[in-house]
Amino acid sequence: MMAQSDLDLKETALKEDLKFYFMNPCEKYRARRQIPWKLALQILKILMVTTQLIFFGLSNQLVVSFKEENTVAFKHLFLKGYSGVDEDDYSCSIYTQQDAYDSIFYIINQYMRLKNISLGTLGYEHEGSGLKICKQQYKKVTMLPSNDTLNIDVSTETECIFFKPQELAGKKAELKLNSSFFSLEFYRLIQVEISFKLKGIALQTVHARELPDCYVFQNTITFNNRAHSGKIKIYFDSDTDIQECKDWHVFGSVLQKNTQYILIFDGFVILSCFASLILCTRSIVLALRLQKRFVNYFLEKYKRHVCHADRLEFINGWYVLVIISDVMTIIGSILKMEIKAKNLTSYDVCSILLGTSTLFVWVGVIRYLGYFQTYNVLILTMQASLPKVLRFCCCAGMIYLGYTFCGWIVLGPYHEKFEDLNTVAECLFSLVNGDDMFATFAQIQQKSMLVWMFSRLYLYSFISLFIYMILSLFIALITDSYDTIKVKHFFFPLHF
Amino acid sequence: MMAQSDLDLKETALKEDLKFYFMNPCEKYRARRQIPWKLALQILKILMVTTQLIFFGLSNQLVVSFKEENTVAFKHLFLKGYSGVDEDDYSCSIYTQQDAYDSIFYIINQYMRLKNISLGTLGYEHEGSGLKICKQQYKKVTMLPSNDTLNIDVSTETECIFFKPQELAGKKAELKLNSSFFSLEFYRLIQVEISFKLKGIALQTVHARELPDCYVFQNTITFNNRAHSGKIKIYFDSDTDIQECKDWHVFGSVLQKNTQYILIFDGFVILSCFASLILCTRSIVLALRLQKRFVNYFLEKYKRHVCHADRLEFINGWYVLVIISDVMTIIGSILKMEIKAKNLTSYDVCSILLGTSTLFVWVGVIRYLGYFQTYNVLILTMQASLPKVLRFCCCAGMIYLGYTFCGWIVLGPYHEKFEDLNTVAECLFSLVNGDDMFATFAQIQQKSMLVWMFSRLYLYSFISLFIYMILSLFIALITDSYDTIKVKHFFFPLHF
Amino acid sequence: MMAQSDLDLKETALKEDLKFYFMNPCEKYRARRQIPWKLALQILKILMVTTQLIFFGLSNQLVVSFKEENTVAFKHLFLKGYSGVDEDDYSCSIYTQQDAYDSIFYIINQYMRLKNISLGTLGYEHEGSGLKICKQQYKKVTMLPSNDTLNIDVSTETECIFFKPQELAGKKAELKLNSSFFSLEFYRLIQVEISFKLKGIALQTVHARELPDCYVFQNTITFNNRAHSGKIKIYFDSDTDIQECKDWHVFGSVLQKNTQYILIFDGFVILSCFASLILCTRSIVLALRLQKRFVNYFLEKYKRHVCHADRLEFINGWYVLVIISDVMTIIGSILKMEIKAKNLTSYDVCSILLGTSTLFVWVGVIRYLGYFQTYNVLILTMQASLPKVLRFCCCAGMIYLGYTFCGWIVLGPYHEKFEDLNTVAECLFSLVNGDDMFATFAQIQQKSMLVWMFSRLYLYSFISLFIYMILSLFIALITDSYDTIKVKHFFFPLHF
Amino acid sequence: MMAQSDLDLKETALKEDLKFYFMNPCEKYRARRQIPWKLALQILKILMVTTQLIFFGLSNQLVVSFKEENTVAFKHLFLKGYSGVDEDDYSCSIYTQQDAYDSIFYIINQYMRLKNISLGTLGYEHEGSGLKICKQQYKKVTMLPSNDTLNIDVSTETECIFFKPQELAGKKAELKLNSSFFSLEFYRLIQVEISFKLKGIALQTVHARELPDCYVFQNTITFNNRAHSGKIKIYFDSDTDIQECKDWHVFGSVLQKNTQYILIFDGFVILSCFASLILCTRSIVLALRLQKRFVNYFLEKYKRHVCHADRLEFINGWYVLVIISDVMTIIGSILKMEIKAKNLTSYDVCSILLGTSTLFVWVGVIRYLGYFQTYNVLILTMQASLPKVLRFCCCAGMIYLGYTFCGWIVLGPYHEKFEDLNTVAECLFSLVNGDDMFATFAQIQQKSMLVWMFSRLYLYSFISLFIYMILSLFIALITDSYDTIKVKHFFFPLHF
Repeated sequence: MMAQSDLDLKETALKEDLKFYFMNPCEKYRARRQIPWKLALQILKILMVTTQLIFFGLSNQLVVSFKEENTVAFKHLFLKGYSGVDEDDYSCSIYTQQDAYDSIFYIINQYMRLKNISLGTLGYEHEGSGLKICKQQYKKVTMLPSNDTLNIDVSTETECIFFKPQELAGKKAELKLNSSFFSLEFYRLIQVEISFKLKGIALQTVHARELPDCYVFQNTITFNNRAHSGKIKIYFDSDTDIQECKDWHVFGSVLQKNTQYILIFDGFVILSCFASLILCTRSIVLALRLQKRFVNYFLEKYKRHVCHADRLEFINGWYVLVIISDVMTIIGSILKMEIKAKNLTSYDVCSILLGTSTLFVWVGVIRYLGYFQTYNVLILTMQASLPKVLRFCCCAGMIYLGYTFCGWIVLGPYHEKFEDLNTVAECLFSLVNGDDMFATFAQIQQKSMLVWMFSRLYLYSFISLFIYMILSLFIALITDSYDTIKVKHFFFPLHF
Repeated sequence: MMAQSDLDLKETALKEDLKFYFMNPCEKYRARRQIPWKLALQILKILMVTTQLIFFGLSNQLVVSFKEENTVAFKHLFLKGYSGVDEDDYSCSIYTQQDAYDSIFYIINQYMRLKNISLGTLGYEHEGSGLKICKQQYKKVTMLPSNDTLNIDVSTETECIFFKPQELAGKKAELKLNSSFFSLEFYRLIQVEISFKLKGIALQTVHARELPDCYVFQNTITFNNRAHSGKIKIYFDSDTDIQECKDWHVFGSVLQKNTQYILIFDGFVILSCFASLILCTRSIVLALRLQKRFVNYFLEKYKRHVCHADRLEFINGWYVLVIISDVMTIIGSILKMEIKAKNLTSYDVCSILLGTSTLFVWVGVIRYLGYFQTYNVLILTMQASLPKVLRFCCCAGMIYLGYTFCGWIVLGPYHEKFEDLNTVAECLFSLVNGDDMFATFAQIQQKSMLVWMFSRLYLYSFISLFIYMILSLFIALITDSYDTIKVKHFFFPLHF
Repeated sequence: MMAQSDLDLKETALKEDLKFYFMNPCEKYRARRQIPWKLALQILKILMVTTQLIFFGLSNQLVVSFKEENTVAFKHLFLKGYSGVDEDDYSCSIYTQQDAYDSIFYIINQYMRLKNISLGTLGYEHEGSGLKICKQQYKKVTMLPSNDTLNIDVSTETECIFFKPQELAGKKAELKLNSSFFSLEFYRLIQVEISFKLKGIALQTVHARELPDCYVFQNTITFNNRAHSGKIKIYFDSDTDIQECKDWHVFGSVLQKNTQYILIFDGFVILSCFASLILCTRSIVLALRLQKRFVNYFLEKYKRHVCHADRLEFINGWYVLVIISDVMTIIGSILKMEIKAKNLTSYDVCSILLGTSTLFVWVGVIRYLGYFQTYNVLILTMQASLPKVLRFCCCAGMIYLGYTFCGWIVLGPYHEKFEDLNTVAECLFSLVNGDDMFATFAQIQQKSMLVWMFSRLYLYSFISLFIYMILSLFIALITDSYDTIKVKHFFFPLHF
Repeated sequence: MMAQSDLDLKETALKEDLKFYFMNPCEKYRARRQIPWKLALQILKILMVTTQLIFFGLSNQLVVSFKEENTVAFKHLFLKGYSGVDEDDYSCSIYTQQDAYDSIFYIINQYMRLKNISLGTLGYEHEGSGLKICKQQYKKVTMLPSNDTLNIDVSTETECIFFKPQELAGKKAELKLNSSFFSLEFYRLIQVEISFKLKGIALQTVHARELPDCYVFQNTITFNNRAHSGKIKIYFDSDTDIQECKDWHVFGSVLQKNTQYILIFDGFVILSCFASLILCTRSIVLALRLQKRFVNYFLEKYKRHVCHADRLEFINGWYVLVIISDVMTIIGSILKMEIKAKNLTSYDVCSILLGTSTLFVWVGVIRYLGYFQTYNVLILTMQASLPKVLRFCCCAGMIYLGYTFCGWIVLGPYHEKFEDLNTVAECLFSLVNGDDMFATFAQIQQKSMLVWMFSRLYLYSFISLFIYMILSLFIALITDSYDTIKVKHFFFPLHF
């Protein structure tokens, strides 16, 4: 009797708790006058995280544009006949021996005269080795293509020569330029690599009331003859390193303070994320405890285990999203502070962390919109159709993969967009979504009639299949889900 | 008893008035032989407003093309090595000190010889200061990038030099060209700004039987070295001012009359809009009075207040649209007359006002189409689905915003389309609507493997989510609304 | 009694005839063993018309490519600094006085040396006037832009000079070149027009076993300074006239025969179209007679007039289509024969007639597919949804028109695609159908912030409205029609 | 009685067999513990075929890029004024006689100096004829275009001249260059063809631990004057032949082994495909036997023939797909081995075979996904809607064909995309699927107002019809199929 009443009491308490657990903040406030701290915190967090992201992006932009403009300026200064636009992944290409020699000596010359021609705030690096020219070639090659004769020692040797900036105008430099190093044997040459370090100072940040940064540009120009196809590709690569200027004096303005405000703001962001992290973790812990109680109670009363799906219902997916987002923001913010302090340069990792967390935070807003009845239908439709859509994507994905492989192997040699497994996938994906189809059709070279016929069959069949069949099926799937949800919604509306 | 019958009488009158109020013009004509003046006026207005717009546009076109051709001609005349197409937002860029000097002296030279080279009807402005060259630079900068050493006085100084057109060929000019002003210290130079005024006369309008206009071109060429990145961007900016020619004699043709006809036409447009404005305001006032009567009657009879939605039904949204459109047309027409009289040059404001009002006037036509049963279904479907679509856009907008922020921060440094929050939004919007996806994929630089992977994940997920899920849901929403309306329409057709 | 039985008899006969009239060929064959001559003729016609079109197109292609290549060659020969691609609608443009003189003398020079430089089979026309240079200018202009002073005599004068090919190298030519004609006063110059006739022979047709054609090229080069904007646009216009060579001898091959075969084939096409025309006219006449009988019978029996819609059912729309197509083919074929005989050169009219008729002939095939049950559903759906779609297009068209006007007036001066009412319509239409949106967004010049904001509002609202609302409604409309037809189809399938 | 029981027995056995036959592997395993060998083999095959394809593609890529880079290098070396991008299908074009002579002598010169200018590993072919220049011209042409006079002997003559590499610098070459061969009579010249063979060695493969290949480049430069239009098109054609190097010694690395591994792997692929082929053939044979038994039984019991559709159900379409795929893989692999051994060069055939078979293998995966209930709906929908979609495509295809013919004949002369029946079809197909519409609109030349009007009518009507009507009908069709299948699926789920 006692136990029964005890069970009854437990049941009532559990029911009450369960009811409360599945309430949304408005209902909770109405029921127990519980002020929705979590909600307020989330809204504050959205504002702070977005503000932080925007500041980071804006300061990033200055650095990036400075780097890029310098790279462009270097290309114009050092690459002979540079057109202003890169060919493919290399900057330019040469086809004659004369051009090769000209290009190399042009670089040496421009490097020598740098102070007199450059518009930037550049300087040589004195401790370094100056201009370093290395040529890599096969150890021994005797080849007579006319006779199909070839003697080759596959092992390579690398020879280097150095030009110090201070000696460049002198006699010593002249001697070096006339040395046998510069009589290149193109049939065994693999590559010539010219590298040098330059230092620069970015004054632009002064306008933003920040300290000027000192940059080190590690430029590498590579003459790539690896293919021995009669075309040497010239790559220009500029690695940029940001350092704190060692010895600086700035008059006439108060800088630096700005930096401190940003650091303090970053601290607040970390703090708020930490608070949100703790609150959400607490909620999940509470939920798990409630789940345990429920499972026990269920076992006690009905002698059955609660099924897996019902158990999962206790774990609120939104909390998991918030936790992931919080952890990313915290790590990202710490990285950001380190970057600001010039200890780290992993901009990319930091921006991916902050960017993704902001994406999650904004997606999280949908949850609060879901508290309103009318918005909920849409969210539920998306949730309901998601598994169907994914399942269908699986099927379509198989056909897609097959087409990708097939297109790559057959059309690869004849079409730029099919050169790479990766670009084939992108090209097909783009075609389905209405990309410039005619250009894709037209670019296929009419060298081989067989391949041309195949390409037409391939493209027409792929596009028709995917646009007419598969896209239509998507619409059918989602319309179906929408109808289901609309009916269901009026009988047992769910919140979660 | 009396009161009752009085109430009955009032009820009958009110019912009659209400019925009449919700009739469309055809029915009104049939019921009370009321000739639809408002309808006739609206149709007249559509014709007049559209005609006015077309005349304004055509005369505008001449002015715009004259300005544009002049700007292009100036760029070809004054910018050395101008390719005919602007790079980005600046016209061209230079990378060596020699180019900088050459470009500056080229401008001075061309300005000096302008009369002998230009094909246009240009002249110097005598009262002005001629050619004005200003250089802005930091007060004191000592920098040794090699040693990471920097002494900088952030405050700037501006120095200017003037070339009068009459002295340009003489000795004085030569002296000035050799002055120390032209030995630029690029490490502290912020920008060089060359500005001059030219006057021109547009003869083309003579063909359109209008008076020729006198133009003042305020040209400014800016050499922007603000970034100190080794790349100086050259901006060309031409501000054009239209004035009435002071002293003109035109033989052999009757001009000017045309202008008067247009002014008279504009007057008529204003008049008709005013009439329409008054009629529509009257209708709204009558409606409000009717509403009041209805509310009182309802209160009297049922002792209840009329709900808000039912009250709103009395205010015809179309009348509001017409009133807004009329006000815009009137203001726009007055502005237009002022522009014609050369008192104002705010073309843009005027064209926005006239354009928007014309858009509204044409959209208003739909209302009259709605009087036909079969057309009405479509209009009602659009009205019915609008709130659902907006609500859904809200949800989708959150995800969209999240993706926008995330894309900007991560891909901004590697992709042109993601440089700006604003362009990111446009790029994503375009991608959803079937823009050149492959180009967007391909443009992401493969510098950082991490970012490259992220970009793929980002783009594939965004496009799939939006095209397959969200666009399909739009279709589901609208199909659903259509079905609802079609059913409802056969039971209680509405007109408003 | 007699009348009754007579009516009965008439009724039976009428019913029989009506039943037969609405049968399709297969059923007719089964019912009365009537061999479907019309069907056979139509199929034969499709083959013949298509064959004729293809032959016409192929022979047309040769002529067109010859003309085009000649025009390109002329542009390269006569236009100084021609880049190979036309700017806008003119070929190239010049900005300095020196360039203007150079370009004019270059043309004279190249014309003089034509025999020695041209690769084509060109000759001067001896009877003509040789090279004719005309300059058109205002009679008197005194303008001092600096003082806003202008005296202008709007009437124009035209002065011409001639260079005969035979005199070009001589002294007389030199004198002319030094004459005062060539001191151009650009401030009053309206245009310079250089025109000359060249003759050529197209040998290429010999390969196709056809007779070589003789061509007359009337080339006109116009230096357009109408705008006086400092930019002279150079137009190149080449009018080509095909003539029969007067005096020709061709050895070593039998030509000409081919031409005769084609003429005979054209004759057969005309014949078959004529037969089809007569058969279809007869069918319509019979149908009208049947209709009359039916109307009379209906009046007699039910004392009521047959409603308009039922009467229309008797006129088979397909027959009308066939008749229109036949008439077009006959006229087109006659034109084609005249063109072949060099009596006419109206290629365009002929190709439009033949092209449209072929389109109709192929569309007519759908009718025969409709005889199969399963195909019929689709055709009926299209027929059923057409009025709804058109009605809806009407509504959408109003909004579309409003946007077109509004976009033209506001964005016209800032965006190439909005320059013309016509191109605005095309641009908006393309945007709805998934054109390169980002480019459209990006091209709007950021000169005026107000316009820039407006353009964003304009484009986002237009695209969202049309793609999300209106396209979805199309789908809803057609899905609805399909469902209706599918249900109806199983109860009373129709053939017509 | 006996027969009855015999029949019963047979019936039970047949039922059992039938049930088993229509089971999927999982069910078979559960029913008879039959391990799904076929399934395992298929999965293994997918892996192996894909791996083989990727290896083939990667090794192919090297060869293709080597060939392509060589072609580009040749174009830069031998074509004077080559811009780096091909015009249309030819490389460049010339317009003056001087350019023609210059281009020809430039080729001879560059060929002579090849060793000193080329960056590649090229050599002359000694046995060959060196540089061969042939000009083809009409035997006799007298033409006076001025008088429309033409005497032509249509038969052609071909004259050739040879330059041996060893004699090129000597006196003999000089004599030849001055010979009358080089005074071209352009009015009767049809084409000049310059051809030469070069040999090269690809060292790049050494990095991939493969043997270096010896290449023979058969280059042909054609000056095409066939049209006599004043424009000579220069075609560059490079036929590449891969041979085994006759005499090679490679030190310092172990090559060749890699090749053997690949051959062994290819063998395994063939083996597994053979096994799969046999298993599937066996299954089909068993199925046919079962079908026969069933037919007999049915005849015996119900005295009726089994209908055709039910008979077809026995032949599993997937098996047929697998068999086709296997046969293709086997042939493709054998071809691949032959190519590796340098016996064959039919890369294209091999890649089409391997590519298509891989596509089929991946599509086959869908079959296994169909074993899961939820996936099955989608596959069945696609199967069910396919006939409807094809039938509808038939109807739409007629209109499409009509538009294709009509567009070709009318717009062909005015628009690049309509030049060819083939490209018209592609262009229209692309337009329907959202290609760059505005560009298509804009490219139509405004020469003839009539054609311009027609083009607008043509494009607007085509796009509206296809995008709004036909695409929407596709969606209606597939939504309908989906709804049908969803209902059917819950009553009698099928596996096949």
